[in-house]
Amino acid sequence: MSVTFIRNCWYGAGWGEDISRDFLSRMILGEQILFYRKEDGTPCAMADLCPHRFVPLSMGKLVGDTVECLYHGLAFDCSGACVNNPHGNGLIPRTAKVKTYPVAEKWGLVWIWMGDHEFADPETIPDYHWLTDQKYRQVHGTIKLEANYLLVMDNLTDLSHAGFVHEKTLEPREIATASYEVAEKDDQVWTRQFVPSMPVPPLFTMVKGFTGQMDHWLEMRCDPPGCMITFYGVTEPGKTREEGWGTYNPNIITPETESTTHYFWAIARDFDLDDDAMSEAFAEGAGYAFEHEDRPVIEAQQRVLNGRELMDMKPVLLQNDQGSGRARRIIERRLREAAAGPAKSMEAAE
Amino acid sequence: MSVTFIRNCWYGAGWGEDISRDFLSRMILGEQILFYRKEDGTPCAMADLCPHRFVPLSMGKLVGDTVECLYHGLAFDCSGACVNNPHGNGLIPRTAKVKTYPVAEKWGLVWIWMGDHEFADPETIPDYHWLTDQKYRQVHGTIKLEANYLLVMDNLTDLSHAGFVHEKTLEPREIATASYEVAEKDDQVWTRQFVPSMPVPPLFTMVKGFTGQMDHWLEMRCDPPGCMITFYGVTEPGKTREEGWGTYNPNIITPETESTTHYFWAIARDFDLDDDAMSEAFAEGAGYAFEHEDRPVIEAQQRVLNGRELMDMKPVLLQNDQGSGRARRIIERRLREAAAGPAKSMEAAE
Amino acid sequence: MSVTFIRNCWYGAGWGEDISRDFLSRMILGEQILFYRKEDGTPCAMADLCPHRFVPLSMGKLVGDTVECLYHGLAFDCSGACVNNPHGNGLIPRTAKVKTYPVAEKWGLVWIWMGDHEFADPETIPDYHWLTDQKYRQVHGTIKLEANYLLVMDNLTDLSHAGFVHEKTLEPREIATASYEVAEKDDQVWTRQFVPSMPVPPLFTMVKGFTGQMDHWLEMRCDPPGCMITFYGVTEPGKTREEGWGTYNPNIITPETESTTHYFWAIARDFDLDDDAMSEAFAEGAGYAFEHEDRPVIEAQQRVLNGRELMDMKPVLLQNDQGSGRARRIIERRLREAAAGPAKSMEAAE
Ligand code: FES
Ligand code: FES
Ligand code: FES
Repeated sequence: MSVTFIRNCWYGAGWGEDISRDFLSRMILGEQILFYRKEDGTPCAMADLCPHRFVPLSMGKLVGDTVECLYHGLAFDCSGACVNNPHGNGLIPRTAKVKTYPVAEKWGLVWIWMGDHEFADPETIPDYHWLTDQKYRQVHGTIKLEANYLLVMDNLTDLSHAGFVHEKTLEPREIATASYEVAEKDDQVWTRQFVPSMPVPPLFTMVKGFTGQMDHWLEMRCDPPGCMITFYGVTEPGKTREEGWGTYNPNIITPETESTTHYFWAIARDFDLDDDAMSEAFAEGAGYAFEHEDRPVIEAQQRVLNGRELMDMKPVLLQNDQGSGRARRIIERRLREAAAGPAKSMEAAE
Repeated sequence: MSVTFIRNCWYGAGWGEDISRDFLSRMILGEQILFYRKEDGTPCAMADLCPHRFVPLSMGKLVGDTVECLYHGLAFDCSGACVNNPHGNGLIPRTAKVKTYPVAEKWGLVWIWMGDHEFADPETIPDYHWLTDQKYRQVHGTIKLEANYLLVMDNLTDLSHAGFVHEKTLEPREIATASYEVAEKDDQVWTRQFVPSMPVPPLFTMVKGFTGQMDHWLEMRCDPPGCMITFYGVTEPGKTREEGWGTYNPNIITPETESTTHYFWAIARDFDLDDDAMSEAFAEGAGYAFEHEDRPVIEAQQRVLNGRELMDMKPVLLQNDQGSGRARRIIERRLREAAAGPAKSMEAAE
Repeated sequence: MSVTFIRNCWYGAGWGEDISRDFLSRMILGEQILFYRKEDGTPCAMADLCPHRFVPLSMGKLVGDTVECLYHGLAFDCSGACVNNPHGNGLIPRTAKVKTYPVAEKWGLVWIWMGDHEFADPETIPDYHWLTDQKYRQVHGTIKLEANYLLVMDNLTDLSHAGFVHEKTLEPREIATASYEVAEKDDQVWTRQFVPSMPVPPLFTMVKGFTGQMDHWLEMRCDPPGCMITFYGVTEPGKTREEGWGTYNPNIITPETESTTHYFWAIARDFDLDDDAMSEAFAEGAGYAFEHEDRPVIEAQQRVLNGRELMDMKPVLLQNDQGSGRARRIIERRLREAAAGPAKSMEAAE
């Protein structure tokens, strides 16, 4: 099976602290990539592959800002150029170059651009200011899922599963019958639910001790293929959102291979900013929901599909599949455009 | 490699106690199947696959007689019909149906029919009354083998390996030169050996303490592809079988995949019905012979063949291969007939 | 991917002590082979495969000089002929034959010939007399590498990696710029470095305590595909080799499969023959260098290539790749000749 990925877009490569003076080798869209920071702190990304005998450069060492290959000592700088050949007369072969990738650091993450360098504009990284703005406090983490990124995107853009898979941790079943809005503009999809006077979601009982009925909002913004964020909060019946308790939950997914996905999650909140125990409670709760509730379902789908395309299997469509359906159609359209457009603008990953 | 299975026949799906109010998910002929009992005790079988987003239904829960999917709560009854959609207006999409399979409970086993429903007649399940008739006492168990079912069938229909592989547990080598009869009628194959005055088989020394010479019979009935039974016993020289000690050993095999096989075994006997220790001795002896003597040989064959057809490798043929040879030819003929006949009567499993 | 191996040549099959009255089953060029010694000590090799039902003969037992199959007791002698059928009338089917392979015992190893029997001349086994001549003392061992044999050959024929991968155990970096000679004759490749007055290689500091500057030689003889030996030594500046300390390091590699390689290594020395502790030090040092320095690099290359041909990936060529480059071209030429020549002289292994 040969699947294609959108290449001309920013993908989350790691949290800022993941990239350091120690090499990080991470596979993204099926390509093994070496990440490190230069002495001035700037992140770099290049193919984790020595062009001499195809040893991973990450087995070598960082000397100043250059990468020295373990096997025969060729050294490369951040631009991918070979800057030292320690053998014989020391001439550097013209072909001794390593592929590099544009990177940008924003909102506490390092982002990578897998497509044509000339289109790599950091301004197009979606807004996640809730991660860095001092008016919020956040916790975050990284998970690897054994599933194609589209199954993870379906899960994250789908508000309706919460009342079932997360019945005990996030949402009561009542949410399922609540009204539901989907909007799409400029390749961004919003799904919105607002439920007046509903039983308090279990999460807010856990972190704030709330019980009884409250107004509740649940919204998802999706910039396909990989940039999502969920807004989730409660306020007293009839009050405004500003008077309530809001959370802002970036969900950033990046295909590792066709069948595995990096998932960078965070939870920011606009209340109790000084409460360390609450931060821990959010981290634990999120960890539990992802690891024990979402992961088994998503990975079971992957095993069932086993390389087949979900849409080829003619799934039954429910009303609540509109958000993920629109996101999938945006991806399909962009893949078609890339295939039809200038040859360089999209490459097939095997 | 694409191998075909006979579909219009009953396969053993499990022992009666395997199917309960807890879900059992078992793969049969490459299809993942959900088994459970309704509140009235009737066994049900359906595809373990939600038609919405292809999550295994076995991850969900049984509510009365209906199966509720974990991911978004669609509920299905035993006929495979969707009986509840908890979302939005609750309309049930026309395509929300789950594939079901005819099942029957007989001789203490639950049987499944993988082919056309209209041909599923429980009267065609082979006779295994020794399992339920009070004149016998039985022990039984289940094994999974990492081998194609034909290799397991070869092993079970082949009387001649016993004197070698089971030299210490079942048969002395002398059996190899004993005379040998094969008969075939209505797609049933019998292989028969009767040896007057032979050293007592080790099994009867173990369970009864017999020594010296006795008359010995060893017979195999095979209804391909999966229904076998071995009759194995001794009597004093010149006496009738009725005066002797007989065992009745159902060997029921069901392909899980092309390279793995469920094996349901039992040993019934017509003597010492009240002797619990003897039941245990039989269970232990059988367990030892299957696990430590047959399994290594059969699984080694599978690894050696590694997807190749045994008959394509031009095996040397010995006289004692007649039983398994006839059984294989019956299977080949039925597969050819199914392929040529009404399209529905056989499907290729990938 | 289908790769071909040279068949008409001797491959190391094992050290003399590996082949005994206990069966050894070892895969060579993708074929599972049974090795044992006859009662008179002669080694035998035959396919580890019973021609009846394809059970590995190594599961059976050795009775005198014949191999008895576990499953149904057919027995075969060293020539591959069936010499006993214990069933029925005992007639031996004409096709009951096992494939055999010429073997030879020389220099303390058992060698196997995977090609046409008529060309199997033990005189063509390369010279490794340093292993058996009393003027030397040796230690040896066996390693299995998860890599195609060409990557292992590249590593062994490449003198230039030592100053990098083995910087702490074998060679200082200075060796990289030393002059370098390559010679080829009769399908044998020699690579030679001689460095006057160089920092003592770490190995000689370890075993002899030498420090400061010495003259150093480093030479590799390669008879592709699998027979190599490295000559490595030091002498005081301006003195002859004979006055110095020399080691003789057979490196014999044999493809197990396309992606795995048997590696038989030895270190012989011409000094301190009675020093047992030094033998242990050499064995430990070699073990460390192979296991912790070479293996990770070679196996990483294999994972990166993942079935692709290294030369198809257009590697950057450095001066020091001449030795391995010539060896690879000899192999390619011999494979082409075999493909073009008498059909029997080479077979493709899948
Ligand atoms: S493989 Fe990197 S320098 Fe040789
Ligand atoms: S996957 Fe079963 S209800 Fe959605
Ligand atoms: S498999 Fe070897 S004798 Fe039958």
